[in-house]
Amino acid sequence: MHRTKVRIVEDALDANNTIARANREDFDRHHVTVLNLMSAPGAGKTTLLERAIGEPLPGVRAGVLEGDVQGSIDADRLATLHIPVTQLNTGNGFGGECHLDANMVRSALSELPLDDLDLLVIENVGNLVCPAEFRVGEDARAMVCSLTEGEDKPLKYPLMFRACELVVVNKLDLLPHLEIDLDKLLYNIDVVNPDVTVLTTSARTGEGIDELRDWLTELAHRRVSATAAP
Amino acid sequence: MHRTKVRIVEDALDANNTIARANREDFDRHHVTVLNLMSAPGAGKTTLLERAIGEPLPGVRAGVLEGDVQGSIDADRLATLHIPVTQLNTGNGFGGECHLDANMVRSALSELPLDDLDLLVIENVGNLVCPAEFRVGEDARAMVCSLTEGEDKPLKYPLMFRACELVVVNKLDLLPHLEIDLDKLLYNIDVVNPDVTVLTTSARTGEGIDELRDWLTELAHRRVSATAAP
Repeated sequence: MHRTKVRIVEDALDANNTIARANREDFDRHHVTVLNLMSAPGAGKTTLLERAIGEPLPGVRAGVLEGDVQGSIDADRLATLHIPVTQLNTGNGFGGECHLDANMVRSALSELPLDDLDLLVIENVGNLVCPAEFRVGEDARAMVCSLTEGEDKPLKYPLMFRACELVVVNKLDLLPHLEIDLDKLLYNIDVVNPDVTVLTTSARTGEGIDELRDWLTELAHRRVSATAAP
Repeated sequence: MHRTKVRIVEDALDANNTIARANREDFDRHHVTVLNLMSAPGAGKTTLLERAIGEPLPGVRAGVLEGDVQGSIDADRLATLHIPVTQLNTGNGFGGECHLDANMVRSALSELPLDDLDLLVIENVGNLVCPAEFRVGEDARAMVCSLTEGEDKPLKYPLMFRACELVVVNKLDLLPHLEIDLDKLLYNIDVVNPDVTVLTTSARTGEGIDELRDWLTELAHRRVSATAAP
């Protein structure tokens, strides 16, 4: 039974990668750079996006694909920024999945104004496990890690921290009120992913937001070849 | 393809429930009450357990089954309390699952000192989606919701909030430093699960810990019939 389960999982990941490649070709054809943004629930992805792309990035037209199990709370928040936002619910016909997969993103492609975008941020379902396993056709992956989650998260969820090229350590404004050792958290991130870029931010005070905007702008200008792996 | 996927998921949940019933019968035979404790990553489950059962509960011998994708950080912390702690990693032969299921718990049964326990707390993998879908043979389910996660979590992850009979709103000490509206969070919990018991706690200051200890003690003394659904 266990062997069967492993095979089903492997087949599912293979099928996902095939669809992710198709998504990627569509994104490339429209010259859209795609960022898969992940985190635990409540780490602050939406508030960071409000701060980071609420004002237009220089020379970059940004949009958001908002993934949630259900509801449109985050999409409604982002819609007030007057950037294109499309809601994708995993509870609608997808069984309430704990992550976005390539097929779900594909189902939303026709609703995305790809011709009007240079950068599409896909805000994944809040979860530190499965989103890291399913590529959706993105160019890059980033995660938000809230200081309040504790120093040990990179060691407990290493796949997520390894899957990303950017880790945003958020809620820096709470540091004086927490028992967390920031240096230890940064050390643990470095242990599991020595090559990752780390930004420290506070979506509330705005600290580090300029650096995040710079990173997003650079990402949007870094066009990758359409033949790269999905 | 989608229909097939739904069937596979339903079959998996059926198989899970069958094993959950077997677990439940074993727990009942040993007169152990079992609590499935869930939360998002970093909400404070382990620290709450340190505070709540670090001192013996009156007339209740408690133990912990510690679920993690990998590592034994939390089990190591709890081991210093001199209560029985067993580590269960979903990364070992279970494909790195984002939740515990009945079969995983079953695989750990022989390592659990059931004869020496009145209450077993199963600390699930940090995740607000899938753990709510997989029963493991528990008597009750509880979740920890950190204030730092925001008011909207009950609306975004209603299945989890509905699955539980206790919601512990934790990190109350951070309230003065957050923009969160506690009344709105409590209102949203009530909207999705009007019957749930809610406790507000701070694992750091100890606020609300006595109430949590009372709840756990009552749970352990509330024996349920072995014929109840898993």
